[in-house]
Amino acid sequence: MVLVAARNPLNIGAAARAMSNFGFRHLRLVNPYPVAFHEARSAVGAAGVLARAEEHRTLTDAVADCALVVGTTAIQGRELRHPLHRLEYGGRLIRKQLATRRVALLFGSEKRGLSNRDLSYCQWLMRIPTREEHGSMNLGQAVAVCLYELARETKTTAMARAPRLATAGEVERITALLFEALRASGYVGPRSSASFQEKLRRLIRRLPVQAPDAEVWLGMLRQILWKLRSGK
Amino acid sequence: MVLVAARNPLNIGAAARAMSNFGFRHLRLVNPYPVAFHEARSAVGAAGVLARAEEHRTLTDAVADCALVVGTTAIQGRELRHPLHRLEYGGRLIRKQLATRRVALLFGSEKRGLSNRDLSYCQWLMRIPTREEHGSMNLGQAVAVCLYELARETKTTAMARAPRLATAGEVERITALLFEALRASGYVGPRSSASFQEKLRRLIRRLPVQAPDAEVWLGMLRQILWKLRSGK
Repeated sequence: MVLVAARNPLNIGAAARAMSNFGFRHLRLVNPYPVAFHEARSAVGAAGVLARAEEHRTLTDAVADCALVVGTTAIQGRELRHPLHRLEYGGRLIRKQLATRRVALLFGSEKRGLSNRDLSYCQWLMRIPTREEHGSMNLGQAVAVCLYELARETKTTAMARAPRLATAGEVERITALLFEALRASGYVGPRSSASFQEKLRRLIRRLPVQAPDAEVWLGMLRQILWKLRSGK
Repeated sequence: MVLVAARNPLNIGAAARAMSNFGFRHLRLVNPYPVAFHEARSAVGAAGVLARAEEHRTLTDAVADCALVVGTTAIQGRELRHPLHRLEYGGRLIRKQLATRRVALLFGSEKRGLSNRDLSYCQWLMRIPTREEHGSMNLGQAVAVCLYELARETKTTAMARAPRLATAGEVERITALLFEALRASGYVGPRSSASFQEKLRRLIRRLPVQAPDAEVWLGMLRQILWKLRSGK
């Protein structure tokens, strides 16, 4: 579970407690407010999870070893390019992956949720089915509801062998190399870089790159980039 | 939703917010800590629910008009005489009733949960499937998880017409009359009254009394009681 820019120590503590309740171990915090993280450590029943929590400066680092990155949002259809699933269905998709892959579930800050940049790391988005008139949940409660759904007992049969997908770290390296290649090629100018990089990231996230293929893609891109640069 | 003896204003506020998120309107508080209820009124996004919240001095009053009373517990098998369902299954049972009957979902205080006396009002109990090693959830989070499950989208077909059951108020009147009758009959002495009344309440709660039958039972008991008293 990844909390991005969480502000309130009570919410960090509540998220950790819900993780402990439902048996999830890996909490990662991206740029938490320093005081918030420090104060959260005293949360009831969450000491184990919080002691193991990792702090990351960037989301890139936080999800690097994850094969599936899912964002949560309260808003319907804010980011039209992402598939948006209700929790009942999205939870089922995640449960199927959890046995064989690392999955990152992202929660944004209390005020603003996940930014467009954060969303560019996500393959798809998930929404807790709240009322339209009052969609925004308390962060700690939203985490608890999502983890309950992930831990839910189901009677699905054993899944068929799924292909191993590239991790978010590998995909990010592909994105970065492609971006450099496109810049070196003059496709993208130096000024439009930030928003274009997000677009590119989304473009690539929509492709489920299989793990054995990632190296091949990286190799091709490295070669292209080398050529582009040496050709200057 | 009924909160019994809630202490923390943040939890009352969080419970109300979750109700608003998932479209539940009727919050009832039994003996809340006065300051807690007052402070909770400022909770984010919960003003509507809190403005309508009812305060009751006793649980008897709070559930009087409900046909199904369900208690929540973190502990497995504390109250062996009650059926105990996991939330996934219990939620389904409640959803089936919600369309035609008033259902009361009870949450106990943060420290101690529901007392044995509180439990004696419940037809059955429900447990959120947390880890055995860390079963106790934060109250606001537990409420959110339960309401999410109740609001969950399901593809069940329209239910068959279910018989209308007596309300908790009617059942309580039956219990009280029977208790008086038993006391008047000498079956129970004046000193053992409190714990015996709880046993009796449970005994009756296990019987799904249908609404049209409640009046008949009450009439019979009134008559017996009158006879017992006048015979002294």
